[in-house]
Amino acid sequence: MEDTVFMKIVKREIPADIVYEDAQTLAFLDIKPIALGHTLVIPKKPFENIFDIDDETLSAIMRTVRKISPAVRDAVGAHGVHINSNHGEAAGQVVHHLHFHIIPRHARNEFEFWPETDCPTPTSASEIAEKIREKIV
Amino acid sequence: MEDTVFMKIVKREIPADIVYEDAQTLAFLDIKPIALGHTLVIPKKPFENIFDIDDETLSAIMRTVRKISPAVRDAVGAHGVHINSNHGEAAGQVVHHLHFHIIPRHARNEFEFWPETDCPTPTSASEIAEKIREKIV
Repeated sequence: MEDTVFMKIVKREIPADIVYEDAQTLAFLDIKPIALGHTLVIPKKPFENIFDIDDETLSAIMRTVRKISPAVRDAVGAHGVHINSNHGEAAGQVVHHLHFHIIPRHARNEFEFWPETDCPTPTSASEIAEKIREKIV
Repeated sequence: MEDTVFMKIVKREIPADIVYEDAQTLAFLDIKPIALGHTLVIPKKPFENIFDIDDETLSAIMRTVRKISPAVRDAVGAHGVHINSNHGEAAGQVVHHLHFHIIPRHARNEFEFWPETDCPTPTSASEIAEKIREKIV
């Protein structure tokens, strides 16, 4: 299988604006930023998403996210960050290599971030909770 | 300081549709879901956000996120999930107790999730990367 663009960045086959690196993770600027300073954090090994990664590698990723989030915020004079990720094509995942976005935010209401979709009625919430509990392995 | 609504849920002072619990974390349905099965994962201790949490607690949170994400997806027949979080009021954080959203998604293009805002020009990207590197402590 051909390497994803992120593996090519890990292997230094294509350039990226790298902001941090350690043994297990790499952080670099998104080439299609939605805000100034928009940064990605990835594992160096090619896990696809939350459904195949292991806890230890995920912890390493989050250590990097935690470590650099204040830097991403402060580097652009922002006051907060979104830490977002998409898992599966249905969720808009394009590159099939797990990545967390760190997106600086300066103020609320710059845009409507989470428009509502198919909201359940209050009575169905407990049913959904029950379904989730049943699915946990 | 008065407890947040999440601490009241941890203390069982107010009800919630709890889907998972362990020593350090709690997962329950969002009371204002943007999709069926929209679940929150929080630490039981009242950290505010990514800027004050420690790595060990964050790892515990992500273990829970990883553990329950397939269940959240499958419980509603979805095919992917967003794992999103807001840190700081500027990023839309309303409850000042760190939380990760797990949001099931059935198909792409249900809505435009990330409209673009202040995108940098290509030439400024390396400058931003340099600023972030400088800020990492």
